Amino acid sequence: MQFFNKINPIGIFDSGIGGLTVVKKIASFLPNENIVYFGDTARVPYGNKSNSTVIEYAIQDAAFLMKKNIKLLVVACNTVSSVAIDILKEKLDIPVIGMIEPGVKLALEKTMNNRIGVIGTYATVGNKAYTTALKKNDENVEVFEKPCPLFVPLAEEGLTKHRATELIAEEYLSGLKELDIDTLILGCTHYPILSDIIQNVMGDKVKLIDSGTAASLVVEEYLNARGLRNESHQQGSYQYYVSDLPRKFKEIAERFLGNQIDHVDKIDLETLIASGR
Amino acid sequence: MQFFNKINPIGIFDSGIGGLTVVKKIASFLPNENIVYFGDTARVPYGNKSNSTVIEYAIQDAAFLMKKNIKLLVVACNTVSSVAIDILKEKLDIPVIGMIEPGVKLALEKTMNNRIGVIGTYATVGNKAYTTALKKNDENVEVFEKPCPLFVPLAEEGLTKHRATELIAEEYLSGLKELDIDTLILGCTHYPILSDIIQNVMGDKVKLIDSGTAASLVVEEYLNARGLRNESHQQGSYQYYVSDLPRKFKEIAERFLGNQIDHVDKIDLETLIASGR
Repeated sequence: MQFFNKINPIGIFDSGIGGLTVVKKIASFLPNENIVYFGDTARVPYGNKSNSTVIEYAIQDAAFLMKKNIKLLVVACNTVSSVAIDILKEKLDIPVIGMIEPGVKLALEKTMNNRIGVIGTYATVGNKAYTTALKKNDENVEVFEKPCPLFVPLAEEGLTKHRATELIAEEYLSGLKELDIDTLILGCTHYPILSDIIQNVMGDKVKLIDSGTAASLVVEEYLNARGLRNESHQQGSYQYYVSDLPRKFKEIAERFLGNQIDHVDKIDLETLIASGR
Repeated sequence: MQFFNKINPIGIFDSGIGGLTVVKKIASFLPNENIVYFGDTARVPYGNKSNSTVIEYAIQDAAFLMKKNIKLLVVACNTVSSVAIDILKEKLDIPVIGMIEPGVKLALEKTMNNRIGVIGTYATVGNKAYTTALKKNDENVEVFEKPCPLFVPLAEEGLTKHRATELIAEEYLSGLKELDIDTLILGCTHYPILSDIIQNVMGDKVKLIDSGTAASLVVEEYLNARGLRNESHQQGSYQYYVSDLPRKFKEIAERFLGNQIDHVDKIDLETLIASGR
């Protein structure tokens, strides 16, 4: 185990910009921590790639952040969390926190009737990672998964209050609502952007589980347990890296982050791939 | 110039499945022609990749189809058409037809008031390929471009008659409608799937230019001029290749094609990359 300084940053990566909703939550729960974010915007989305490719990319993304001397890694991507988390844990000598386990843990704490819904992309719902993890923790829980693929582009387009988004949410969620779930896991880091509409459709009695909130609680636990909390009383610093700067990146990123981004560094793919070697 | 047999197939490729709307049109205009389609579904979308990457992928895609002894190549992808068409024309010893020139030609034939709209993805609208090509052909034409990014996922989700799609189309297109255009180029191969809704919003007086229809006319012209028309009286045969088989591929592909697909071959990326060497 390397020596880690408490002031070292938390590393967070995602295949794109969805992970910024996780940065937002961690920054609000742990405002003194420094954060380095990497979004692999050149190779997004990971959800339609083979497991071996996702693992290869994840190792590169993590290796790039390791060079920034991170003390803990958050995998803010559901696809990587479901495919590559064990390999990353094995390879890295720092704590690695994915999206699935924290969401599952928090959902099981919150549910009263043991009926939990999960929404995500086709990739996430298709591999049943949440159902598997929920049942492993509590075999009596009933899980209902539903893909909501249009939520990602609607969030990126910023149609967070649009009637069209409400109609699509009603179409996707009405089946889940009838199943009497009391807890709904937002199994995609883009979905918190649409949480108002999702909550409206599901009704006030259904508790939404945001992966960013769930991960923040686990990050705090890990840092406390290992004596790694940054004890500075100052606001943490934030660094953002991406592998490509797509059009409207700053606008979308700031919406996801809920804050201004002063500076983003674009790293080239060769550097990224070399990191993984 | 190689010797080409009239019965050799037409090759058509796209970064994904949108190009199937072009296959549909070419098959209906030229029913006796054999067609080989390749969709690079493992590396879709191309629109957010660098020009050099798009060129590299386009060369690989074209080389894969060249091994199928195609007599003519249709690049059924707007991104590749705007970035790599000249390089493909230079490299290949068969006719190469992209999406932009045919659409531009047909739009200029149809417009009466010289006011033409273009809708496409952020990538297509951002690089102004249609405006440049339209102005090059007729400097008096006025061009108004508008990105409609949600049309791709809405078409893939099959929401072709949904009220949500109508609302989004109204939002995207109302500005163009007020600009008094009489011709609208559908600058993305996914958009013909939503042409009913687009036509409803724009009104009956606006002529929609479908790239597949435009390309079919140019393909026919090329084949006639070079004596390459297939003279068989039988229905042509169709072969489909993809680099990945995403979830729901068959369902979406058949909606785009308007026909059943009996068989799809998945080729691996190594084979594809080796084709380009």
